[in-house]
Amino acid sequence: MATNSLFLLPGDGIGTEIMAEVVKIIDWSNAEGLTDFSTDSGLAGGCAYDAHGEAISEDDMAKALKADAVIFGAVGGPKWDNVPYDKRPEAALLRLRKDLGLFANLRPAICYPALADASALKRELVEGLDILIVRELTGGVYFGEPKEIIDLGDGQKRGIDTQLYDTYEIDRIARVAFDLALTRGKKLHSADKKNVMKSGVLWDEVVRGVAKDYADVSFNHILADNCAMQLVRNPKQFDVIVTDNLFGDILSDVAAMLTGSLGMLPSAALGAPDPVTGKRKAMYEPVHGSAPDIAGQGIANPIAMIASYAMALRYSFGMTELADRVEGAIAGVLADGLRSADIAQENRKTVGTQEMGAAILAKL
Amino acid sequence: MATNSLFLLPGDGIGTEIMAEVVKIIDWSNAEGLTDFSTDSGLAGGCAYDAHGEAISEDDMAKALKADAVIFGAVGGPKWDNVPYDKRPEAALLRLRKDLGLFANLRPAICYPALADASALKRELVEGLDILIVRELTGGVYFGEPKEIIDLGDGQKRGIDTQLYDTYEIDRIARVAFDLALTRGKKLHSADKKNVMKSGVLWDEVVRGVAKDYADVSFNHILADNCAMQLVRNPKQFDVIVTDNLFGDILSDVAAMLTGSLGMLPSAALGAPDPVTGKRKAMYEPVHGSAPDIAGQGIANPIAMIASYAMALRYSFGMTELADRVEGAIAGVLADGLRSADIAQENRKTVGTQEMGAAILAKL
Ligand SMILES: CC(C)[C@H](C(=O)O)[C@@H](O)C(=O)O
Ligand SMILES: CC(C)[C@H](C(=O)O)[C@@H](O)C(=O)O
Repeated sequence: MATNSLFLLPGDGIGTEIMAEVVKIIDWSNAEGLTDFSTDSGLAGGCAYDAHGEAISEDDMAKALKADAVIFGAVGGPKWDNVPYDKRPEAALLRLRKDLGLFANLRPAICYPALADASALKRELVEGLDILIVRELTGGVYFGEPKEIIDLGDGQKRGIDTQLYDTYEIDRIARVAFDLALTRGKKLHSADKKNVMKSGVLWDEVVRGVAKDYADVSFNHILADNCAMQLVRNPKQFDVIVTDNLFGDILSDVAAMLTGSLGMLPSAALGAPDPVTGKRKAMYEPVHGSAPDIAGQGIANPIAMIASYAMALRYSFGMTELADRVEGAIAGVLADGLRSADIAQENRKTVGTQEMGAAILAKL
Repeated sequence: MATNSLFLLPGDGIGTEIMAEVVKIIDWSNAEGLTDFSTDSGLAGGCAYDAHGEAISEDDMAKALKADAVIFGAVGGPKWDNVPYDKRPEAALLRLRKDLGLFANLRPAICYPALADASALKRELVEGLDILIVRELTGGVYFGEPKEIIDLGDGQKRGIDTQLYDTYEIDRIARVAFDLALTRGKKLHSADKKNVMKSGVLWDEVVRGVAKDYADVSFNHILADNCAMQLVRNPKQFDVIVTDNLFGDILSDVAAMLTGSLGMLPSAALGAPDPVTGKRKAMYEPVHGSAPDIAGQGIANPIAMIASYAMALRYSFGMTELADRVEGAIAGVLADGLRSADIAQENRKTVGTQEMGAAILAKL
């Protein structure tokens, strides 16, 4: 097996603690001969700002660009609330997404049966929930220019952001979403605000065009505000939802929260296949943040981080069997009654980060 | 009492049916000498397009501009899915908001005790819920220019919308929100995406400035994606939420859906006080849409429409007592066990639009 390279960016807050548990799993699978990963790690977010004065150094960016997959923890914290805008922790994330061309963000929202009662929603509405939000990640209002604050004089300023989508950007994310729908429930909703946005009109026009190539997938348009409502009212009506960068940010957070499993949810950000090798650049990241309030206490839930690594095995390396095994191990420790503090339950054993990581490793 | 003028725009779908119940209440309070309203009505949305080829005629716009308050039903339906973009039913709503300068959109999300079980959320999370979303309504990506689709050649188009806020726009909506917070729970959250948007950075800067003038209100910044999550996780942590046009559209829909009372929720859109008379232009509208699927069957819930009229009494005419009486009558018929089809419950009596309107009138 040729060596595959992983670049680890634990980031800030609980990022280092949860990444340590992933490293143990990598070491195990390398030792077992199941994988042949070389790993390197770098700094991203506030820790990189402290070290280099930038949210990510050029050196680490170069390593991220060369790696077969980037495994990302989480960034940010109150310590860096007042750093200059282009050096804030989130800038690392945005630069990695943009420079690696990671336009397709896969955000599964799955309700683990053991956790259905942790949802704010009634059990029957979320039990068995399995939604995949496919969020466009390198376009829209996140990156469109002009993006600036202008001084108008007389105490007046103007803040401007530009929501901008080109046909090809919509086409490629739609195809990713339809392809994924084919492997799942064969149902796709496309969410936009075409009733008020011209980018939404184009979005809908292009997605409808792509839908014609996927006769086996049932296609539905939905307005983004109604989609947010329907996610709360009856989430199981959805299978795959494709949407733009900003709506995807909000809708995927709503979907994640519904499951009661926020600390458990992974995500993948994928680039276009290389025309020669067919390989996609990719970054894997938990949906939750850096949780500065509990950092350093050894109580963070490492499951979303480990599940992100499982997504890397699946999507970057085609190691379906090993990915299934890791995901099975996670379900197994939950079924055994282990819980981290964020999902603590009566009559279940609350364990720390390392204990949870060790239990998952033991299952493997 | 000087004559006050109401301009009624029932719109499409169930709009006409539910407006008819408001008219009965106006007739009653005029007859009782409690009010002295003159009323006129016009066409907005698809019905206006059918009659005039525009979403609203110049004549009706002029009447809306002259009225003391506009009472709006709902617009839209599949019949008009393919009319030209600038003549679509929603264009009436957007033009009224813009030309009347209705920058402050008040969207209460209240959980009627009788309906707590209708929520998708667990009863204890929503019982007693009372959130007010204050949404900026005449700026942001809804109206910013450029707003267009450009043909780039080679089969490529570019859809562009512009998110744009000036200091004064943020300042005035923040003041409305803080003033309202003072009359309620004295807690305000301002939601934006300042971590990725420059308009969000300016939004936050200006709102923080205004907060200094309201020492009695506890002020909190929250990212819009996190706000959507927190609304689902624990909505009772919120009192007043102030946010921009697009985030307000989505967050207010989520908040409304949480209550289980979507068919019950009113909204108000207010302009700036006239420098001479102190009067604000205003439009009152139910949060729900035109529900073309049930239009004409006499089963639509008129409560949100009637509650919108109560908001008009309160905010446009200072008739607090009568507004309280109308709201009390609504709560009363619910307590009596009357339900429209959308909120039907076992062991409760399901009634039609007219029967519900008559029951509320009888309570008055
Ligand atoms: C941290 C922030 C820049 C980011 C985003 O808005 O995309 C986050 O909310 C996410 O969803 O990954
Ligand atoms: C109908 C549509 C244009 C409108 C909006 O997006 O503002 C609606 O969703 C609302 O919230 O009033």
